[in-house]
Amino acid sequence: MSEKKKIAVVLSGCGVYDGAEIHESVFTLWAIEKAGAEYEIYAPDIEQYHVINHITGDEMAEKRNVLVESARIARGNIKPLSGYNAANYDALIFPGGFGAAKNLSTFGFEGSDCSVNPDVEKALLDTHQAKKPIGVICISPVLVAKVFKNAKITIGSDQGTANAVQSMGATHVNTSHGEVIVDESLKIASTPCYMLDAKITQIADGAENIVNAVLEMTS
Amino acid sequence: MSEKKKIAVVLSGCGVYDGAEIHESVFTLWAIEKAGAEYEIYAPDIEQYHVINHITGDEMAEKRNVLVESARIARGNIKPLSGYNAANYDALIFPGGFGAAKNLSTFGFEGSDCSVNPDVEKALLDTHQAKKPIGVICISPVLVAKVFKNAKITIGSDQGTANAVQSMGATHVNTSHGEVIVDESLKIASTPCYMLDAKITQIADGAENIVNAVLEMTS
Repeated sequence: MSEKKKIAVVLSGCGVYDGAEIHESVFTLWAIEKAGAEYEIYAPDIEQYHVINHITGDEMAEKRNVLVESARIARGNIKPLSGYNAANYDALIFPGGFGAAKNLSTFGFEGSDCSVNPDVEKALLDTHQAKKPIGVICISPVLVAKVFKNAKITIGSDQGTANAVQSMGATHVNTSHGEVIVDESLKIASTPCYMLDAKITQIADGAENIVNAVLEMTS
Repeated sequence: MSEKKKIAVVLSGCGVYDGAEIHESVFTLWAIEKAGAEYEIYAPDIEQYHVINHITGDEMAEKRNVLVESARIARGNIKPLSGYNAANYDALIFPGGFGAAKNLSTFGFEGSDCSVNPDVEKALLDTHQAKKPIGVICISPVLVAKVFKNAKITIGSDQGTANAVQSMGATHVNTSHGEVIVDESLKIASTPCYMLDAKITQIADGAENIVNAVLEMTS
């Protein structure tokens, strides 16, 4: 019998400018396993908002699916987020990347007036209702800011983004590399990662710190 | 003045089944930085052999470019391999993934009769001529097996692949997780990573071990 804690990780595509940030995603999986826990990977089965050429920054005339592209990071071992059941996991973590602000929500276009994908909102609410912790990395704290209204979070130190999450009712705390803000009441941990101008080793540290903070809140 | 060693890393797309293996690529970059060195990222500016749906394994009716997709892992900071100049680097490393056997070479379809992409072949030969070390991960050892004929390498323990690289003149050594085979004469290090049924923490260990072995051979 495995006594390992099991964490669900939700991806939003594959690539920082239109999907999940790849380094944050990989180090989150690594940090979970390194901490002696297990992961399973989810993504919503929806079309990406758009496809960005990651060299030029230009939009490409293509359509890609969030679940199918996320499967590249997951090496095929991934499930549709609509099937997520909080009862089967000890915690839920969202790595960052623009996918969180373009595919999982409309924050990238509508700021504090954004909406959150229904599967994402349900996963967050169900996890919270089950009294289990949630980790949000980089720009993903906007998801919990919108859904929980009064969360205490960090998105690093960008004042425009901090103002937008405060407009949604969240309390924002400025942070630097690797720092984790824990909202004890809502059981939500957040860390900035690439919301700061970071090096790849700092992303590994941030992922490890937030995974450990989330695991500490599991019962 | 930076005294840091600088390593060029060559990607072959973004995703294990039609490009660079994402975990191996990310941990290679991380291991380089962790060891106190720097990296710059390259990929050939060519069309991918094909595009694979990473959930179903089916081919998709799309075209993607190896350089553009590799830029997802590189967060946009990538150059065409045609511009690689061995004089500017201390070493050259190829992470794995089917991209090495489908985009960087034809090994995936033609086995020991494969050809190697001309930019890849030139980068390998120039690096060798400059007496600088080369690291090859997962299935990428097939590239040096083809180009150098008499390399001593590992692709893990798969006998079919081992036989194919031996048909190209290479000496194959069976290895397990994290082990590195060093060909002192050619200055080539290899490690199996996902050529074995590995966990993500084992990929991090393998990447760290090969990066350290490569750095040890730099002058």
